[in-house]
Amino acid sequence: MNEVKVFCPATIANLSCGFDVLGLCLDNVGDEMIVRKTAEKGVRISKIEGANLPLEAEKNVAGVALLAMLEEVDAEFGFEIEIYKHIKAGSGIGSSAASSAGAVFAANELLGNPFSRKELVKFAMQGEKLASGNAHADNVAPALLGGFTLVRSSNPLDIIKIDSPDELFATVIHPQIELKTSDARSVLKQTVSLKSAITQWGNVGGLVAGLYTQDYDLIGRSLHDEIVEPLRSVLIPGFDLIKQSALENGALGSGISGSGPSIFALSRGKETAEKIAKGMSAVYDTMNLPYEIHVCKVNDTGMKVI
Amino acid sequence: MNEVKVFCPATIANLSCGFDVLGLCLDNVGDEMIVRKTAEKGVRISKIEGANLPLEAEKNVAGVALLAMLEEVDAEFGFEIEIYKHIKAGSGIGSSAASSAGAVFAANELLGNPFSRKELVKFAMQGEKLASGNAHADNVAPALLGGFTLVRSSNPLDIIKIDSPDELFATVIHPQIELKTSDARSVLKQTVSLKSAITQWGNVGGLVAGLYTQDYDLIGRSLHDEIVEPLRSVLIPGFDLIKQSALENGALGSGISGSGPSIFALSRGKETAEKIAKGMSAVYDTMNLPYEIHVCKVNDTGMKVI
Repeated sequence: MNEVKVFCPATIANLSCGFDVLGLCLDNVGDEMIVRKTAEKGVRISKIEGANLPLEAEKNVAGVALLAMLEEVDAEFGFEIEIYKHIKAGSGIGSSAASSAGAVFAANELLGNPFSRKELVKFAMQGEKLASGNAHADNVAPALLGGFTLVRSSNPLDIIKIDSPDELFATVIHPQIELKTSDARSVLKQTVSLKSAITQWGNVGGLVAGLYTQDYDLIGRSLHDEIVEPLRSVLIPGFDLIKQSALENGALGSGISGSGPSIFALSRGKETAEKIAKGMSAVYDTMNLPYEIHVCKVNDTGMKVI
Repeated sequence: MNEVKVFCPATIANLSCGFDVLGLCLDNVGDEMIVRKTAEKGVRISKIEGANLPLEAEKNVAGVALLAMLEEVDAEFGFEIEIYKHIKAGSGIGSSAASSAGAVFAANELLGNPFSRKELVKFAMQGEKLASGNAHADNVAPALLGGFTLVRSSNPLDIIKIDSPDELFATVIHPQIELKTSDARSVLKQTVSLKSAITQWGNVGGLVAGLYTQDYDLIGRSLHDEIVEPLRSVLIPGFDLIKQSALENGALGSGISGSGPSIFALSRGKETAEKIAKGMSAVYDTMNLPYEIHVCKVNDTGMKVI
């Protein structure tokens, strides 16, 4: 194999109560990437379509992630990367993670898979570090592993994959506004009340239990975030209306995707997910706010060769 | 059936990271209780052995719990209760919960089980309210349901039972000191850092995942509490030495049982649990501190008729 084409899925991090620890992988929303062997060693990005991003490997998240991986494996060839971006930067559904994770996943394929998907996470995190200053696994872990991922600990890295219940769908709406990660960070408070923290970890326990037992009601009851969402949601126009509409249309729960501005809702079954999409769209249509909207099954496979 | 004899198991609440939400049920440590039908309606406690507790139903946790239950069901007879206490009051392994839960469980049997075990929790909580001023489910839930229980929410009450992995054992040591719940409460801080809270809910997620997947290593990696244990453990003599000894002898994790002073360790297999018991005992022997020690399988059944 001299060339591989991969699908690099979008992801939702900071899943309600699971702020900083729980994420999921989306189906049919994502980038594509072609990686091919080159005689010349090293990493070269030859083409980027759909986004204005640096071609220099050291300044591109895909390049940086792959370079980190190449420090730990002997490759007898080099890599040329073509990136076809479909996930908008700053949308809150893991655009940089798709590229970082995609590059290492594809290169690993060309190398005969010396690393497991879980082992690739730490390399992809180096791309995230370039993108946000913080080598976090919240998006690269679900992008690589699929389903739901729990980052139990970042140091040492301890990631648990949780298979998605069969009928779980996500609806994601992306209002076309700019929300800087730095602003989304600056509204966070560094302390929380013990009472809220207990509520939150009770919900994290409930959500994980609901995923293992395919208990959709329990998943719904657990999808709350009383710590971060109240602070961040005010930065997203129409958040309360969108969330209310989602719940009225049968969503199990709804919240901010990543650090926003995208808003997600989870539901049981495609029909409900599409109904939610209509309702969410109507809210932004009324506000005359441009948006993109996606309805996807939770993707239990993650990154894949296409 | 005119009379029923039940085993009322001891329980561990506040399971490390699962402060206020996660508990487990112990095997072979517990009280016994006989409840029999009487012609005269109402609740009468005729005998208490092993503890100096009030016989008046309205002042006894077992009586109060049963009276709460009788408000919701028509009983054509009354109840006489004999309590044989083996769990010491103030030990931190759910002494009052065993009595509260035992009374409603036994009476429910005599009534032909109009309530599910889960439905009994709210009545048993009224006994806890009498005991501690707080109608909490942390101990009565695992006592009634067995295995591990997650109190996702107290209001509305939402309890999830998680079956115990087959080979999970607990070692519990009870130093014979008095530790008032009020003192254990007063050391708590009402706010926590967001960083610690995230660590904690990552661990709660990991612990729940480990229980569902019978992943003992993951259970061990998740059994940490960086919020409450550091504050409370200073009230328990030799806590650090006991915990260190448990870990050195192969414990998956160790922490404070309930609000103390008992200290628990979880392990895979009885042999390790007994080795841990020896090590813990040696620590208190050296300190000349009297103690009781228990080695028990996690009890997946909970309360039972004997």
